Amino acid sequence: MTINEISSAKVHGGWHKQYLHESAVLNCPMRFAIFLPPQVEQTEQVPVLYWLSGLTCTDENFMQKAAAFEAAAKFGMAIVAPDTSPRGENVANDEGYDLGQGAGFYVNATEPPWQKHYQMYDYIVNELPELIEKNFPVSNARSISGHSMGGHGALTIGLKNTERYRSISAFSPICNPMNCPWGQKAFSAYLGDDKTTWLAHDATELLKQGRTQLPILVDQGSADQFLDEQLNTGALVKAASISNYPIEVNYREGYDHSYFFITSFIHSHIAFHAQHLIDTQVT
Amino acid sequence: MTINEISSAKVHGGWHKQYLHESAVLNCPMRFAIFLPPQVEQTEQVPVLYWLSGLTCTDENFMQKAAAFEAAAKFGMAIVAPDTSPRGENVANDEGYDLGQGAGFYVNATEPPWQKHYQMYDYIVNELPELIEKNFPVSNARSISGHSMGGHGALTIGLKNTERYRSISAFSPICNPMNCPWGQKAFSAYLGDDKTTWLAHDATELLKQGRTQLPILVDQGSADQFLDEQLNTGALVKAASISNYPIEVNYREGYDHSYFFITSFIHSHIAFHAQHLIDTQVT
Repeated sequence: MTINEISSAKVHGGWHKQYLHESAVLNCPMRFAIFLPPQVEQTEQVPVLYWLSGLTCTDENFMQKAAAFEAAAKFGMAIVAPDTSPRGENVANDEGYDLGQGAGFYVNATEPPWQKHYQMYDYIVNELPELIEKNFPVSNARSISGHSMGGHGALTIGLKNTERYRSISAFSPICNPMNCPWGQKAFSAYLGDDKTTWLAHDATELLKQGRTQLPILVDQGSADQFLDEQLNTGALVKAASISNYPIEVNYREGYDHSYFFITSFIHSHIAFHAQHLIDTQVT
Repeated sequence: MTINEISSAKVHGGWHKQYLHESAVLNCPMRFAIFLPPQVEQTEQVPVLYWLSGLTCTDENFMQKAAAFEAAAKFGMAIVAPDTSPRGENVANDEGYDLGQGAGFYVNATEPPWQKHYQMYDYIVNELPELIEKNFPVSNARSISGHSMGGHGALTIGLKNTERYRSISAFSPICNPMNCPWGQKAFSAYLGDDKTTWLAHDATELLKQGRTQLPILVDQGSADQFLDEQLNTGALVKAASISNYPIEVNYREGYDHSYFFITSFIHSHIAFHAQHLIDTQVT
């Protein structure tokens, strides 16, 4: 499990670094970014927030635009941002921005031509944390967050792996992919037409069955151009109500789907995760 | 002086907007971005910080990466980010990233083929502030800041127009362009070979003559890859010493030339300008 550093820059007293590694799960080279807070220099093991980005993004969008490092440095939290899909000339792709490279949807594809590389669920849940915990001074205290497609990823991966994460948050998540064009296109391609296989990757469906109740925080802009057709926040809230799941959903008046929204509220998400990561952290 | 809004997004309670307008000075269409803090909705006139970006940048780099809006919203300050040069198919260009489009160097070119469009000094000092003050609820209290080539722009424009600005700051500025490769290439092309014309656009030379003492704040990373060859912070500090100019220069251990550096210290620059813009502001 070799990783190769390709960039390093000091930020808010900590370090932003990018690495390349060969992913056995995705069957291709992958890049990820990590923010290491100043506390790692005192040989402290710090907890990790995993950030899953949205359609078309790489490891760079969140790290450059979200302004998360001041809060993460304050609380002593690492942040890991993976890419959003396998990449490369030999990796299957699609002309649309919402399928193929840049659009892995955090599932394990079962259908050709996707199944050879598109195993993003296993990459995020298993391979990447193992790599991070072997190579950096971090503990096994993990939380997960994301935006849009990555909000879907954070909610579904968190809800399916409650023993592996302490808390879940999302900005503008695709809450009910089975019932929106983005989700239907991706799940048809990656998982096939049998919709019973889709249920395990739909946050609204998972929340209906929610037993172990990880803390969940969602922020959604009221002026989000994708709210009605793609995101379906209302379905998630309704599912939480059905299963009596104490999810916190904040509608933010006038905010859209962009990183200008994320940067406005990222501090409160970092503080939310810190509350669950730091107090009970095993170091 | 018509301006056309091309994007608008809420951020930190205020608004980030982009506009297109026809520049009479630059003889081409230009794009700029403005952050309007929440205070403008209480019909307050707010002061304006002008931000000048570095080589290859547009109006977007600072606005997306610097994380300046939380502090600007707190202090009630607008921020205006122009492009770094005239642009377009009919605008002279060069193959290098450090000359032509994206590299206007904030001077008025006198030499062909540049002089037809490359009048960035007049655009920043006169045309743009007039446009901003006619179209937005802002006062005539102005400060100026910038990065790298834009740090050179902020220092030289501020020092040459002490009646128009309240304070000057810069990250990683090109302090002595007459004596570095970037500055010599640009000044030769735009201003010609007579170096006496260069003196008026060199911060170190201007500071030697500094009489009216606008407050100046400079931050410089110690791990900046351009420090020795291009930036010459030491020459600026020496010039300030010669003229007894009370400039504040902070060397920041381990920081490089990137926006990861800027975002780490932008809050202190916003607070510095607020101190000079807000207390004595004419509204």
